[in-house]
Amino acid sequence: MGIRTRRKNKQEAETSSRRTQVTAQDLMDAAVRLLGTHRSVSTLSLREIAREAGIAPNSFYRHFRDVDELTVALIDQAGRALRGIIREARQRLSMERSAIRTSVEAFMDQLDADEKYLQVLLREMSTGSDAFRQAVERELTYFEDELRDELERMEKLTGHATFEPALTAKAITRLVVAMGASAASQSVDQRAELIDQTVIMIRMIMVGSQAMAKKA
Amino acid sequence: MGIRTRRKNKQEAETSSRRTQVTAQDLMDAAVRLLGTHRSVSTLSLREIAREAGIAPNSFYRHFRDVDELTVALIDQAGRALRGIIREARQRLSMERSAIRTSVEAFMDQLDADEKYLQVLLREMSTGSDAFRQAVERELTYFEDELRDELERMEKLTGHATFEPALTAKAITRLVVAMGASAASQSVDQRAELIDQTVIMIRMIMVGSQAMAKKA
Repeated sequence: MGIRTRRKNKQEAETSSRRTQVTAQDLMDAAVRLLGTHRSVSTLSLREIAREAGIAPNSFYRHFRDVDELTVALIDQAGRALRGIIREARQRLSMERSAIRTSVEAFMDQLDADEKYLQVLLREMSTGSDAFRQAVERELTYFEDELRDELERMEKLTGHATFEPALTAKAITRLVVAMGASAASQSVDQRAELIDQTVIMIRMIMVGSQAMAKKA
Repeated sequence: MGIRTRRKNKQEAETSSRRTQVTAQDLMDAAVRLLGTHRSVSTLSLREIAREAGIAPNSFYRHFRDVDELTVALIDQAGRALRGIIREARQRLSMERSAIRTSVEAFMDQLDADEKYLQVLLREMSTGSDAFRQAVERELTYFEDELRDELERMEKLTGHATFEPALTAKAITRLVVAMGASAASQSVDQRAELIDQTVIMIRMIMVGSQAMAKKA
């Protein structure tokens, strides 16, 4: 949020009894709370988000043009959280044997985070408007690009080439996202098994990709 | 539909001006038309489905207890269509080299089919109620079981073992479904590239699975 907005908010807090010192983040958190585990973004109204955040509806416009703009911001935030997983895994690569397992676990943890941005991203992938689906595709592509960079980096370190690193990264990403999406309807025990399965699946892709690189 | 229902429908058609000779399928088709490309099932009302099908709301109850029951029937139908892909591929296996490519193309064709059941399944995977998500999981598991049987059958024919056939089948299924879900937001040209990418990804999984089976 800009300085002008913060100063305006402060002034209004002194003149109005309704809370106005909210950030864009507060509005996003309010929206995510309303979405819960099932609601699609298309059912959200500006009024209820404002009410949930404790501000007047007009104050909503200080941060977002409309609910759509807030949703795209949510999706972007989920994408940033996803990419944080890769950076964390990169650091762990030198400390632990299985960067795959720790990354999958970190991804699944994101699903349970208080801020359920990742869940919103998974949901809007299939039911959102074209604008949302494209926003989700964009975020996943950013993540795949970073993962591809990681694969190419490992290639230089280990000498093991992957066949079409961009496609390998895409396969891994899409599969993990799909497994994560099914995690929502499962119990804690099933979640542990889900992580084990996802790790093996990623290994299949990596081994297959490396074998195909050798043949080519 | 039972004989009693058919007879009752016929009698009512003679006494009422509103159309009553509808099947459960007609109601399902009406629901799918209303869902279009974006709507979530949770937004459907019994009244509008009945109106779209051209019957009185009370007639809805001859076929389904409520909208939820209709949705589960839709999901089941999508699952049957999916499994049809495997059976078709099985027949093609003797005629064509790439059962993988033809199966992926058949899956993507299902997305464009007039009856958009597959799209509904993909959508309800992440936004439906727990009952719907479980219905979708169930259908995907049926599909994975058939695919696993296919992999084990190929194993006997070719001598190439796959590592954990059930997991291999699950990885392939989840990835194809994920790629299919992203197809909705893409153009025809992008669709062709999507099919090519999906075929390569499945080969990575197969090659990796076979390589891991050899090591084990």
